[in-house]
Amino acid sequence: MAGRRDWTRERLVDAIRAGDRRALARAITLVENGDPLAYDVVADLYPHTGNAYAVGLTGPPGVGKSSLASALVRIVRDEGHDVGVVSVDPSSPFTQGALLGDRIRLSDHFLDPGVFIRSMGTRGHLGGLAETTLQTLLVLDAAGKDVVFLETVGTGQSEVGVISIADTVVLALMPGSGDSIQALKAGIMEIPDVIAINKMDHPLAKAMLHEVRQVLSLGPKGGWRPPIVLTEAVRGEGVDALWEKIGEHRAWLETGDELANRRRRNLSTEVFQVAAARARRHLEDEVRGNAELQRLLEDVQARKLDPLTAVREILEKVFRIGDEGRTDPR
Amino acid sequence: MAGRRDWTRERLVDAIRAGDRRALARAITLVENGDPLAYDVVADLYPHTGNAYAVGLTGPPGVGKSSLASALVRIVRDEGHDVGVVSVDPSSPFTQGALLGDRIRLSDHFLDPGVFIRSMGTRGHLGGLAETTLQTLLVLDAAGKDVVFLETVGTGQSEVGVISIADTVVLALMPGSGDSIQALKAGIMEIPDVIAINKMDHPLAKAMLHEVRQVLSLGPKGGWRPPIVLTEAVRGEGVDALWEKIGEHRAWLETGDELANRRRRNLSTEVFQVAAARARRHLEDEVRGNAELQRLLEDVQARKLDPLTAVREILEKVFRIGDEGRTDPR
Repeated sequence: MAGRRDWTRERLVDAIRAGDRRALARAITLVENGDPLAYDVVADLYPHTGNAYAVGLTGPPGVGKSSLASALVRIVRDEGHDVGVVSVDPSSPFTQGALLGDRIRLSDHFLDPGVFIRSMGTRGHLGGLAETTLQTLLVLDAAGKDVVFLETVGTGQSEVGVISIADTVVLALMPGSGDSIQALKAGIMEIPDVIAINKMDHPLAKAMLHEVRQVLSLGPKGGWRPPIVLTEAVRGEGVDALWEKIGEHRAWLETGDELANRRRRNLSTEVFQVAAARARRHLEDEVRGNAELQRLLEDVQARKLDPLTAVREILEKVFRIGDEGRTDPR
Repeated sequence: MAGRRDWTRERLVDAIRAGDRRALARAITLVENGDPLAYDVVADLYPHTGNAYAVGLTGPPGVGKSSLASALVRIVRDEGHDVGVVSVDPSSPFTQGALLGDRIRLSDHFLDPGVFIRSMGTRGHLGGLAETTLQTLLVLDAAGKDVVFLETVGTGQSEVGVISIADTVVLALMPGSGDSIQALKAGIMEIPDVIAINKMDHPLAKAMLHEVRQVLSLGPKGGWRPPIVLTEAVRGEGVDALWEKIGEHRAWLETGDELANRRRRNLSTEVFQVAAARARRHLEDEVRGNAELQRLLEDVQARKLDPLTAVREILEKVFRIGDEGRTDPR
């Protein structure tokens, strides 16, 4: 097996396509580090992707997403499929303990060669987390994973960058998830494809089920109607039913052009997200390293220059774009 | 009084500075429409701003933010101050009813000449909502409002664009806001300056108070410690205490350089946010109107071109920026 230093582009590509775990681990590290080699490797792998089914798993912190992922992995493994898990942690000093617990749950599968798990933080990605997640998914896809779970915390729109590439999005809630219900109702949180209400033993689980059902009944009629499943992930209860519903959604997508359409939309969204994140990063770097642009910010703070004029000058200097707002008021 | 057509740049600026309500309404409409005149007017007004105290009011949907805003406005009016309220609605067909109710609550003040209320949707802003909100705040500030409330729904990071300009941020929660508590704990939601637990009559209000207190105790020691206030906004209960805590936070900021520092940070954040939103919008417009760039997206969908190469080509063509990741990983 090739050592750390021996990974050329070609060797890495071949080894990943052969499903080599060390090559996979190495490639994902390169992706996380924004290494140019990662870029080349993913470009080479891309024509061989599109076979993995990507399941997004989101929900507020503490609902048991990692336990659900772990239980789902067991089922998918029992069906004989290879699985990848990409688990995205919010970076916060507060969360260490909780996340450690999550990792321990997923670690049940660490010795299984048919499962590849990678968790990643949310900071320091050149093109944002969307870029890292997308590339990691592509690497796992090319490595022959049949199903890839993308697990991330979500309380509204901030998780979109990570799971917008998923074929099926599962939202996990629990009794007490009142804010998420309200956010769904208010249209701030997008309606997912499948809803899991975890911690079904809780005395208020049935009430939550009723509430969620009511919210969904307000949604658009026709098309896919998101099913709701009660689960108790730690004991694996209800997870079979959850996997079944994910399968039904998949079957529904695969009827006609739905899956192709969804992937087309997802890929466009990803490209824009990654491009916008890179543009923003570029903007910040340029302003940081440029005394003239820094002076603009100081003038804004001294109320000598208004913020929008500063924005215009920054955009003109960094991207050489004028202000469409002036000539084409929307 | 000048008619609709008679608002020249100069007249509008003078009338706003004199506190003319019709001029205010007109200017904010121009801001919302991205009209070039709005840009000029805000540029002229900017040197006369910085006197209004901006209070951000955020929280999940349904906690009673508008009722709180309405009750706070009454207190601020009783103290003899002029008030502005900018209320940002999420755009969703589901929310019409709820938001209509909110507007009715705020409408108690519609006949009071010392109160100016404006609600705005979240779509169709050239530089994003951050830009519209910032400009509206500046107009109200220049018009002599002593206090401006920026009210918006928030379940995590998405509200940041609207309230990141606030001097004091109030987070409203209610019994059942379990997801928000978890998000605070996980560091996904930023710790606010003051917390209001609304619907204090609810049997679980005290339990929520206890939970919030526990979460805050995990936070950094030293500096400002966010107070928690129990309120019942509809009856105006506890709102005096809430206003008092906002005042204490203000007094704390005004000791030493805290307020100046915060405003410096806030303004920089706003400038970057607005610039990034405009850059993204520019990117999407360019791709939409350009057959060559559209073809790149199609090639991605056909798996002939990998997404990151597409991103690079788009960024190079639209902004003429190369890819720093290649030559200078991180």
